[in-house]
Amino acid sequence: MSVEKLSSSLCHGGDQQVWRHDSRATGTKMTFAAYIPEHEEGAKLPVLWFLAGLTCTHENAMVKCEYKKAANEHGVIVICPDTSPRGEGVADHEDYDFGQGAGFYVDATQQPWQPHFRMRSYIEDELPEVVAAALPVDMDRQAITGHSMGGHGALTIGLRNPGRFRSTSAFAPIISPLNCPWGEKALTGYLGDDRQDWREYDSVALIEDGARLQNVLVDQGSADEWLEGQLKTHLLQDAVRDAGLDWDIRMQDGYDHSYFFVSTFVAEHIAWHARHLKV
Amino acid sequence: MSVEKLSSSLCHGGDQQVWRHDSRATGTKMTFAAYIPEHEEGAKLPVLWFLAGLTCTHENAMVKCEYKKAANEHGVIVICPDTSPRGEGVADHEDYDFGQGAGFYVDATQQPWQPHFRMRSYIEDELPEVVAAALPVDMDRQAITGHSMGGHGALTIGLRNPGRFRSTSAFAPIISPLNCPWGEKALTGYLGDDRQDWREYDSVALIEDGARLQNVLVDQGSADEWLEGQLKTHLLQDAVRDAGLDWDIRMQDGYDHSYFFVSTFVAEHIAWHARHLKV
Repeated sequence: MSVEKLSSSLCHGGDQQVWRHDSRATGTKMTFAAYIPEHEEGAKLPVLWFLAGLTCTHENAMVKCEYKKAANEHGVIVICPDTSPRGEGVADHEDYDFGQGAGFYVDATQQPWQPHFRMRSYIEDELPEVVAAALPVDMDRQAITGHSMGGHGALTIGLRNPGRFRSTSAFAPIISPLNCPWGEKALTGYLGDDRQDWREYDSVALIEDGARLQNVLVDQGSADEWLEGQLKTHLLQDAVRDAGLDWDIRMQDGYDHSYFFVSTFVAEHIAWHARHLKV
Repeated sequence: MSVEKLSSSLCHGGDQQVWRHDSRATGTKMTFAAYIPEHEEGAKLPVLWFLAGLTCTHENAMVKCEYKKAANEHGVIVICPDTSPRGEGVADHEDYDFGQGAGFYVDATQQPWQPHFRMRSYIEDELPEVVAAALPVDMDRQAITGHSMGGHGALTIGLRNPGRFRSTSAFAPIISPLNCPWGEKALTGYLGDDRQDWREYDSVALIEDGARLQNVLVDQGSADEWLEGQLKTHLLQDAVRDAGLDWDIRMQDGYDHSYFFVSTFVAEHIAWHARHLKV
């Protein structure tokens, strides 16, 4: 497996790196960002996966999200993967919310997406192997978070893999692809018309179908322009209440959907994850 | 004068805004970012001007530079202007370091740049009027900073206007356009071949010609890829020493030229400016 470090920049004492590797899951080159806090030689650090939203590459959170100071202080490696396969021969669509930049963290079963759009396998199985081989991570201490489509990714991956992550958080997540235009468009395209096949990619459906997860924190801005039409936080509040889960779902007054919102609360999320990761 | 607010996003408790206005200095629409900390109704806040570097718009520092938390804590408005005029009918050049995105904070005298490339007048004279009219700023409490070409802008504007800014700082500034390829290319283009005309746009020449400025802080990364060939911090160290000035010029070990470097130290700069602004 060819894994190559593309760049390295000191930031807040730690090292913000970018890596590229050949992915067997997607059949393409994949790029990810990795922030490595200062640490003693030979130490293994806990890892926080940060999944980005629609239109993003590995670069958006790396550049816009103010996680680096807190990650260095708490000694947590932060990995920002890309949101889809890319490149020559990879299917795409002209819309911002479908195709490249909009992988939705699913393994596509439909053409022309099936050969490369395997972001579930990439994030759940392959990337952890790549990261464990290349970086000083302690894979027994993992946490996951994400923004918007990436919040959907974090919650669904967490719910499908109970025990893997010490803690799970999300910023303005898409709650239920079964119940919003973004999700209906993408999952119809990637998975086909049988909505039963979508349920493993839907936080609410996973909870309804019995999935359980502890240590979950969700922040949602009250001024988010997508709250009513796409994100629908209330669906998660209902599902969590009906299942008797003790999740912390917070409305943040006046915040919109941008990285200005994520950056405001990411240090608090990292401190919260760190408490679970350091036990 | 038409001044229009384009956007507004809560971030770290304050409001990150973008504004656009008709500029008489450049004869174009100009866009700037303004971060407004939380404040009491009717209060007037000190202002920090943040001048960006080559290729940047108003957006780069707004998105990449982690100034917002510190600005809110210290109650300092931060203004990020564009780095050149833009739009239809505005001269441009295919290179990244000349033309649009590379105004160098000069008033051009040469064609085809002279009609619109008047960034000195824009930053020194017009934008302060626009900001004072639109925002709750206390213009008796100003400070200025910038990155790279914007660090050159901050230092030269500070040196030409002693008394206007309580404090002046810079991140990885271009020290002397008279003595580096970026400067020689740009100032030849904008100002012509008579290098005597360049001296008011050169920190070292301004100091040699008698300009004096107090409360100056400069940070430069030791791993900056442009340090030797373009930035040449040692020229400023020499000029400051020869003039007997007490400036704080710091080398930051291992940091490169990126906003990862600026973001690491910007909170410290804001705290330092705030001490001067609050007297």
